[in-house]
Amino acid sequence: MGDRLHRLAERAEISFCVDDLDAAKALFKRFEGIGPKLSVLIEVDSGLKRCELSSEAEVREIAAGIKGMKGLELEGILTHAGHVYSARSPDEVEAIGRAEGELMAAMADGLRSKGIGIKPVSVGSTPTVKHSARVKGVTEVRPGNYVFNNMTQVALDVVPLEFCSLTVLSTMISKPAGDRLIIDAGSKSLSSDRGAHGTQFLDGFRFVKDQGVWISHLSEEHGIIDGCCPGVRIGDRLRIVPNHACTALNLFDRAYLVKGEEVLREITIDARGHSV
Amino acid sequence: MGDRLHRLAERAEISFCVDDLDAAKALFKRFEGIGPKLSVLIEVDSGLKRCELSSEAEVREIAAGIKGMKGLELEGILTHAGHVYSARSPDEVEAIGRAEGELMAAMADGLRSKGIGIKPVSVGSTPTVKHSARVKGVTEVRPGNYVFNNMTQVALDVVPLEFCSLTVLSTMISKPAGDRLIIDAGSKSLSSDRGAHGTQFLDGFRFVKDQGVWISHLSEEHGIIDGCCPGVRIGDRLRIVPNHACTALNLFDRAYLVKGEEVLREITIDARGHSV
Repeated sequence: MGDRLHRLAERAEISFCVDDLDAAKALFKRFEGIGPKLSVLIEVDSGLKRCELSSEAEVREIAAGIKGMKGLELEGILTHAGHVYSARSPDEVEAIGRAEGELMAAMADGLRSKGIGIKPVSVGSTPTVKHSARVKGVTEVRPGNYVFNNMTQVALDVVPLEFCSLTVLSTMISKPAGDRLIIDAGSKSLSSDRGAHGTQFLDGFRFVKDQGVWISHLSEEHGIIDGCCPGVRIGDRLRIVPNHACTALNLFDRAYLVKGEEVLREITIDARGHSV
Repeated sequence: MGDRLHRLAERAEISFCVDDLDAAKALFKRFEGIGPKLSVLIEVDSGLKRCELSSEAEVREIAAGIKGMKGLELEGILTHAGHVYSARSPDEVEAIGRAEGELMAAMADGLRSKGIGIKPVSVGSTPTVKHSARVKGVTEVRPGNYVFNNMTQVALDVVPLEFCSLTVLSTMISKPAGDRLIIDAGSKSLSSDRGAHGTQFLDGFRFVKDQGVWISHLSEEHGIIDGCCPGVRIGDRLRIVPNHACTALNLFDRAYLVKGEEVLREITIDARGHSV
């Protein structure tokens, strides 16, 4: 991996996130003396309590450690307010987003006042970003899955349904009872996520865009839709909006940009299958 | 797809399952007059109520329809007792398995007595197969994920933990609090399934084999383990037994056959990404 990263670092800007000096040391050992310096951002906890540091003192300790490692350059701080997926109202989403931005801006001020010259102050999560981005001092946003959106964002009132651009095109393959339809998209095409970060946020299982109903449940290769759609026949196509766009897209090798029925471009999902 | 299937049918035995004459007609249209006959099995409902027919009269109607389609040959009947994943005890698993086998054997007898000459009487699902296979008249078993097993099978008392052969090798990457570990395997490596067929069977999220604890919850690229493992350090490897082997394996391009620490062979996961 080290060699590939170095070749990549020669033609692209690459940053690493660390929350522990042991992780920084592993980077340092691997990259010392070869190639350009590697940018490092320190992860700060804004409530998710995952791979992050809570206090300015802890962040300063990591920053001091990184200073002594010649191959690394401390660039900035970042956070991910993923705990927003447990929010129960738009007001709560806004409050979490504002707190995320304010925490990071204050952390940056504190570090700079002690001579630690960081630049990016980075926040992110799809629901919080429009609130955290407004806080003075925040310089970078990582807006999550805003290109696609999904039913979790709709349920959190982040966007209306018509802002969901990613759908899985399924085929109706069976009608075992009068008001039950079976489609050929299951958990291997839509994922079993009912929210993000393991939350069981949504009661339903993905939305049948063309019919305005939820999928009742998923097998691996089948979706079961109850109480719906007398006009739909075997072979008809139904577009499904996933609960969670990230894990659904991760199940495919290719996606297609479409305008109505016209396919404009095929996209390869390069990163899928590389999470471990 | 038609051409690829035909080439494949020349060198392998291929069967299709149907539960509707419209589906059979679509096959018939595509394959009429070209290549060898295609084998067809009729799906019978044993309780899952998915893509299946409930009564002998319905099965006979499909069988009669298939008889008139020259490219197709009715081979047998099959069922999948996937509703077993809602069972609450080993006794209930056994009862569902026995009923699955008895239903199919009786259905086969009934069809044959009316001159419909079917051969395979096929049953399957990982938990039920050892019970349904014992019923006289059942001629084929589809034993599900018995090669791998997983935490759902352990929870259903189908196998002990040591029979689970599929693990995801993860790395411990952060220790944000004293008794919290973060690993680099999340829902994109383990899937969010908590059972099969959409059941929320398991409370926990995948099992850390080396430490005997459950993962508390999953983000996309992170697993969070609470209350565990003071001796584990950043960089240490942990093997995770998935809740559901099928959807976990479906997330990877490759798997490895290992004996202890030795890698014996790399396997390509050919079928993944082809569910829709």
